[in-house]
Amino acid sequence: MKLAIDAMGGDNAPKEIVLGAMKAVATYKDLHIILVGNETQIKEHLANDERISVMHTDEVILGTDEPVRAVRRKKKASMVLAAQLVADGEADGCISAGNTGALMAAGLFVVGRIEGIDRPALSPTLPTIGGEGFLLLDVGANVDAKPEHLLQNAIMGSIYCEKVRGVANPRVGLLNIGTEEKKGNELAKHTFTLLQDSNLNFVGNVEARDLLDGVADVVVTDGFTGNMVLKTIEGTAMSVFKMLKTALSSNLKTKLAAAVIMPDLKGLKAKMDYSEYGGAGLFGLKAPVIKAHGSSDANSVFSAIRQAREMVEKEVTNTIREAVEKTQD
Amino acid sequence: MKLAIDAMGGDNAPKEIVLGAMKAVATYKDLHIILVGNETQIKEHLANDERISVMHTDEVILGTDEPVRAVRRKKKASMVLAAQLVADGEADGCISAGNTGALMAAGLFVVGRIEGIDRPALSPTLPTIGGEGFLLLDVGANVDAKPEHLLQNAIMGSIYCEKVRGVANPRVGLLNIGTEEKKGNELAKHTFTLLQDSNLNFVGNVEARDLLDGVADVVVTDGFTGNMVLKTIEGTAMSVFKMLKTALSSNLKTKLAAAVIMPDLKGLKAKMDYSEYGGAGLFGLKAPVIKAHGSSDANSVFSAIRQAREMVEKEVTNTIREAVEKTQD
Repeated sequence: MKLAIDAMGGDNAPKEIVLGAMKAVATYKDLHIILVGNETQIKEHLANDERISVMHTDEVILGTDEPVRAVRRKKKASMVLAAQLVADGEADGCISAGNTGALMAAGLFVVGRIEGIDRPALSPTLPTIGGEGFLLLDVGANVDAKPEHLLQNAIMGSIYCEKVRGVANPRVGLLNIGTEEKKGNELAKHTFTLLQDSNLNFVGNVEARDLLDGVADVVVTDGFTGNMVLKTIEGTAMSVFKMLKTALSSNLKTKLAAAVIMPDLKGLKAKMDYSEYGGAGLFGLKAPVIKAHGSSDANSVFSAIRQAREMVEKEVTNTIREAVEKTQD
Repeated sequence: MKLAIDAMGGDNAPKEIVLGAMKAVATYKDLHIILVGNETQIKEHLANDERISVMHTDEVILGTDEPVRAVRRKKKASMVLAAQLVADGEADGCISAGNTGALMAAGLFVVGRIEGIDRPALSPTLPTIGGEGFLLLDVGANVDAKPEHLLQNAIMGSIYCEKVRGVANPRVGLLNIGTEEKKGNELAKHTFTLLQDSNLNFVGNVEARDLLDGVADVVVTDGFTGNMVLKTIEGTAMSVFKMLKTALSSNLKTKLAAAVIMPDLKGLKAKMDYSEYGGAGLFGLKAPVIKAHGSSDANSVFSAIRQAREMVEKEVTNTIREAVEKTQD
């Protein structure tokens, strides 16, 4: 199995990307990795190049680049070349920790959609209190979604959850403003009917306040709402930790107490960090494309690689294609 | 000044409602309150009825009632009668801690909209780290909003923020998936243009992850998205506190440390509790209607009364009417 990795994407590139790749080939003996990026910089960190090849390029898409334009103009950018390797059949999937919008564009224009999928979905796994996590899709690939798109999100999410995360008969929830059947905006109401008529394990509407309690394994929504929920979870958790830190350093007594509980607090913070659950899958493309978190370290890169590898091995793409074909019979 | 209060709404009715009302008349010497509900139950807690009158009714709208149907059929419900007092000019505003959907329906059908306002907006003030708070509108009154509705939300929010919260030239932000101008779904893109062309202090797009940092005083969005953000903040904060509690009771050492920091933690939790900032205003109606939090105690009821009183005193309704008229010239 071959995976192409954008070695120049993310805050800690190329070092952590290279380290993550080395860890992955050491773990998976069937894995070959192609690192795309500045060869000199990559080789600085590449202690062992067994089953790792390097494809050199000087061009890079920056976080500040306008996504679609960058992908169209910077044809030799590390991210675009990684996607091109997939399109050319030289790699079975690709990973980048770079510009999210650009990776969505590269996925769409270079790798291409599965026939029958109208819009790909960006799908991170988010933390739950119990630790099992839930898949949220979409978080920004498709901001003006239609009910059929949300049905496709549900199908893709279910397949991924079952095949890669090992959840039998995943519970699919529709993100809505209340749990009652008639609730919501026009999009949610129409989607409810489609999901109810599907053969998915639809558990009905779920509310945003219950997400971290693990109320469903797969939660579907449009990309605008999903992006809001994702960033609100992030922002709220960070704010609470910030306020906690201030409260704990208010006087000597609390400072001493804080020292005792600090390891637990750090563990808690890690639990809320969704990069621990691997990258966000870009579902609906002809091959696995994974967006690793921008601040990924070697371990997160390793998780994203494992995730892409599982998607290839369990034939997630083919299963999605077949499932979508069936809905269109 | 006269305010009508649904004495039977919320988890702690009528006791905490009555206590809050007594505190309010003791504080504001110009205030007269009409408590609507079961007279026997109300009088059990009414130690002092100076400037408090009771309007008896046996009918109540329950939290489980379907909102619109309940308001139409239960014409003698305490909430509906309170709204009716406003419509009849017997009260200058009303407050309920009961069924949110029903209060929105009572506001719309009984109190009525300001001419020129297409859709009322439900608008709580949410906590920020710095403690100043921000107004979010709408959080569920108008789930299929159009750009003009969001412009009206911005106008109403600005006026409220300036008049009642005393913020000079309030910063208005548009909730979006990125801060750049061209970001977002169709609704957000069109709204951006309207806000830019308005004479409001529009600070551009704001992201959900920055809300608790106080990135704007007034944040506008559609009711579906706003509801998600509100409930995600609530759910995430509660989940973090739950996880914190588990972590802190893991062994004797952390339990002892926890005892030391508990007062600070409780303070922190209170800071995240948006009921501390009063109730959610239902803006765009012919008179102030305030939704107090369902779990309101006497203090929250008092805050909601103070809020309604300020809205009446500062003529928020009239100012909104005039501002909306101007946009339609």
